[in-house]
Amino acid sequence: MELKRTQPKILSGFMELLPADQILFNKMYDTIRRSYEMFGFVPLDTPILEYSNVLLAKAGGETEKQIYRFNKGDTDLAMRFDLTVPLARYVAMYSQEIAFPFRRYQIGKVFRGERSQKGRFREFYQCDIDIIGDEVLDIMADSEIPAVIYTTFINLGFNNFTILINNRKILNGVFESLGLKNRSTDILRIVDKIEKIGEKSVIEMLQELQIDEEKIYKILEFLKIKGTNDEILTKIEKLNVNYSSIFYEGITELKQVIEGIRAFKIPEKNFKIDFTIARGLDYYTGTVYETILNEYKELGSVCSGGRYDNLAECYINKKLPGVGISIGLSRLFYKLKEVGVIKKEEATTAKVMILPLTENINYAIDLATRLRLENINVELNYTKKSLKSMLNYANKLSIPYCMFVGEDEIKDNKITIKNMLNGEQKSCSIDDAINILKK
Amino acid sequence: MELKRTQPKILSGFMELLPADQILFNKMYDTIRRSYEMFGFVPLDTPILEYSNVLLAKAGGETEKQIYRFNKGDTDLAMRFDLTVPLARYVAMYSQEIAFPFRRYQIGKVFRGERSQKGRFREFYQCDIDIIGDEVLDIMADSEIPAVIYTTFINLGFNNFTILINNRKILNGVFESLGLKNRSTDILRIVDKIEKIGEKSVIEMLQELQIDEEKIYKILEFLKIKGTNDEILTKIEKLNVNYSSIFYEGITELKQVIEGIRAFKIPEKNFKIDFTIARGLDYYTGTVYETILNEYKELGSVCSGGRYDNLAECYINKKLPGVGISIGLSRLFYKLKEVGVIKKEEATTAKVMILPLTENINYAIDLATRLRLENINVELNYTKKSLKSMLNYANKLSIPYCMFVGEDEIKDNKITIKNMLNGEQKSCSIDDAINILKK
Repeated sequence: MELKRTQPKILSGFMELLPADQILFNKMYDTIRRSYEMFGFVPLDTPILEYSNVLLAKAGGETEKQIYRFNKGDTDLAMRFDLTVPLARYVAMYSQEIAFPFRRYQIGKVFRGERSQKGRFREFYQCDIDIIGDEVLDIMADSEIPAVIYTTFINLGFNNFTILINNRKILNGVFESLGLKNRSTDILRIVDKIEKIGEKSVIEMLQELQIDEEKIYKILEFLKIKGTNDEILTKIEKLNVNYSSIFYEGITELKQVIEGIRAFKIPEKNFKIDFTIARGLDYYTGTVYETILNEYKELGSVCSGGRYDNLAECYINKKLPGVGISIGLSRLFYKLKEVGVIKKEEATTAKVMILPLTENINYAIDLATRLRLENINVELNYTKKSLKSMLNYANKLSIPYCMFVGEDEIKDNKITIKNMLNGEQKSCSIDDAINILKK
Repeated sequence: MELKRTQPKILSGFMELLPADQILFNKMYDTIRRSYEMFGFVPLDTPILEYSNVLLAKAGGETEKQIYRFNKGDTDLAMRFDLTVPLARYVAMYSQEIAFPFRRYQIGKVFRGERSQKGRFREFYQCDIDIIGDEVLDIMADSEIPAVIYTTFINLGFNNFTILINNRKILNGVFESLGLKNRSTDILRIVDKIEKIGEKSVIEMLQELQIDEEKIYKILEFLKIKGTNDEILTKIEKLNVNYSSIFYEGITELKQVIEGIRAFKIPEKNFKIDFTIARGLDYYTGTVYETILNEYKELGSVCSGGRYDNLAECYINKKLPGVGISIGLSRLFYKLKEVGVIKKEEATTAKVMILPLTENINYAIDLATRLRLENINVELNYTKKSLKSMLNYANKLSIPYCMFVGEDEIKDNKITIKNMLNGEQKSCSIDDAINILKK
C-alpha cells in the first residue's frame, strides 16, 4: 500500500535557515543578548499568545489588519505583533513586584500578517531594550541607550555606523510655531525624501499641500541644518524664528543627551544630530534614534527607538516614562546576507570531529569526553563509513579540525590532527592537540 | 477625559516569570543548549506557524483537538505542537542540502490548547536533540543519547538521577508471543502502575481485561525482572518462554546499547534497564528512554525519547531512521521551583551596580565602561536618588556588589566596593575591585 504523502513546505514570509546560516544567526543573537546584559538589563519572556483585547488595547487600523487573531473555544486570542505592548501589559501587571527603573531586554519572535515581500517577514525576531521609570526617568537614560547601541554594533563587528539622534519636541516646536502642527506627519514624510529626490521636488510637493512659500522656506532652513554636532547645535539656536517653549525644551534635552553620549566616550563619528528623523509620530515624545550602516545605507535604519512619556496608560493609572530601542534581527540578518557581509566561514558547532579508524571506539569516546571537559565541542563520528566519506561529511559541516584515532595512535597514546582548512596534518600528544583546538 | 483602561492579564496556562526567575530559567536554557552543542549538535529554528495540513499530516485525534489552528485569508494555519513534526518536514524539504547523520538540536516554544491544570502549560519550551541517519543509523547513536542526557543533567547540577532504558522490540516480542500484541497499550498502562497500586491490584485489573491467568503470570514474571543491569540481562535470557525473533533482536540491541553507554563511562548508578517503560506506543520502534530525578520521583520523567524507524515517511519516500530525546523545560522549571530546588540566589544579570555620589558622573561612566571591557556586567545607577534608596534597589535586583564613586574616590583614583550579601565594604584600587568581581 502506497502511503499518501503531504508536500513538505513552509508558509511564505517565514524565515527558516540551513544549519550553517542558523549558527551565524544565533551568533548575532548571542552577541546582542550579551551586549544588553553587559549594561545590566534583565531578561523577559512574555507569552506569544495573549488576549486580543489586551494586545489591541491601544492599537490602530494597520495593526488590527496585520495581526494573527483567532478564537479557541470562547477565547479571542492573538499572537503578539511587537514586544512593546507585552512590556506595557507586563509592567502594569507586576508594577508592585518589579524595581524601577525597570531595565529589561526581550529577544523573541513577533508576528505580522502583512503583505509578503522580499526581506520582510511575517514571523521575525525583535531584540528590544527599554528603561522604564516610575513617574520620572533621568535624561541620562537617553544617553545610555546610544551607548548600548554603540557597544552592540561594535560587538557585532561593525565600525562604520552612525546613530542618528533627534528630539521630537524640536520638530513639534517648529511645526507648532508655523501653525502646521496637524500636518507634521505629511510634511515629514515628504521632507524625509530630500536626499533621494532633491530639494526642488520637495518644495513642489510641499506646495501641493498648500503650504505658504515662506513656511516652506522656514521648514527647509530648519531641516537642512548640517555640520558637526556642535555646529548643528549652534545653528539651531540662531534660527530666526519665534519658536514655542516646547522647541527650547527639546534643544535643552538634545544638548544634555549629546553631552551624556560624549561622557560615554562614543566616538564623534558614530553619532549625529539629524532633524529629519521622526519615527512613528504618535508614540515617541522626546529623543528619537535611528542607526545607519554607512556602507549599507540601503538597509535603512537597523536599530531605532526613542523616549515616550507613558508606557502603560491604557492598562494602569501610573505614569511610566521610558526610553527604548529595537533591532529587527531577522531582517538585519537577511539583508546582511544579501549584501554579502555574512559569510559561512566557521559556521559550525563542533570544533573537531573525531574519526575512529578501528573497530574499538572506546579510546575515541574517552578522547571525546576529555576534550568536552576542556570545553571543546566535539562530534564523534561512529558511522563506520570510509575515511573519505567521513572527511567529506566534516567538510560539509565546516568543522575546522578532524582527529584520527587508529591502532597506531592508541598504542602510542597520540592522535593525528588534520586542519581541514589548509589540509595540514600531524601526529601529536592529546595535550598538544587541545592547545591547537583552543587557539 | 478619563482614559478607558483595559485590565492587564495573561491567558491561563501560559508561563510568565518575574525577572529573577527568568534569569534562573535562562540559565537552565543556556546549560541545556551548551550541553547539546558540546556533542556537536547544530541548531534549528523552524517557524512557529505552519500549514495545518503539513503539521497534521500524521497526527491523530488528541493532537487535532489540542492544536491552535485558524484561518488567515485563505490559508489554514496552525501553531506547532511539538518540535518533531517540524523536524520531519524540515529534513524532507532539505534532504539534498543537509549532511547525514543530521544531528540537530532545537529549543523553542510549542503550543497545546489542552485542559488547563497545575504545572501543565499551553505554551511551553521543549529542548530536543535528534540524530537522523540516511537509510541507516548506527546503534551507537542509541548509546550516545544517554551520554548527552547524563552530561546535560550533571551540568544542570543534578547527580542523583537515573536514565531508564528499554527496547520496544522486547516488549513487542513478549506480547506477540502471548498473542496479546493488539492489547499491549492497555496492558502497559496498567502494569505501569505496579509500584503505586501493588501487584495484586494489577493482577485484578488484567483479569478484568479477560487475560488468561497463565499469560498474566508470564507478563508479570517478565516485567518484574529486577537487579543490576547485568543481572537483568542474564534473567531476561533465561525466561522460560518461546519468544519471537523480534524479542531476541531487542535483547541484542539492548546489550549493545548498554555496552556503548559503559564505553561513554556513564556511572552504573545513573542508568538502568527497566522493562516497564514504553513511551507513546506508535512512534518508537527500538530503544526508549525516560529520566527520573530520584529525589523528586513525583515529577515523572524529565527527559524522554527513543529510536524510530522512519522520521519523514509522510513527506518523502526516503528512509530516515533516528533517535532523539526531549526535555520539557517549562514544566521542569515549574516543578523544580515547586519542590524548592530552584532558589533565587544570585538571580541577577549585573554583577555590580555603580553608584555615583557626586554630580559629575563622568568618572562613574568611565569605570562602567572599563569593567564591561573586563567582561563584567555593570548597571550604572544615575537616578540621583538617595544612597539608601539606591542600595534598596540593588538589593531588590539581587546585585551582589555595589561600587561607590564620590569626590574622595575620584581624587584618590580609588573606589569603595560593598559586598551586598555580607555588608562588608572597603576602599581599594579599581584593579583590586575587578579581581574581587571576577572571583
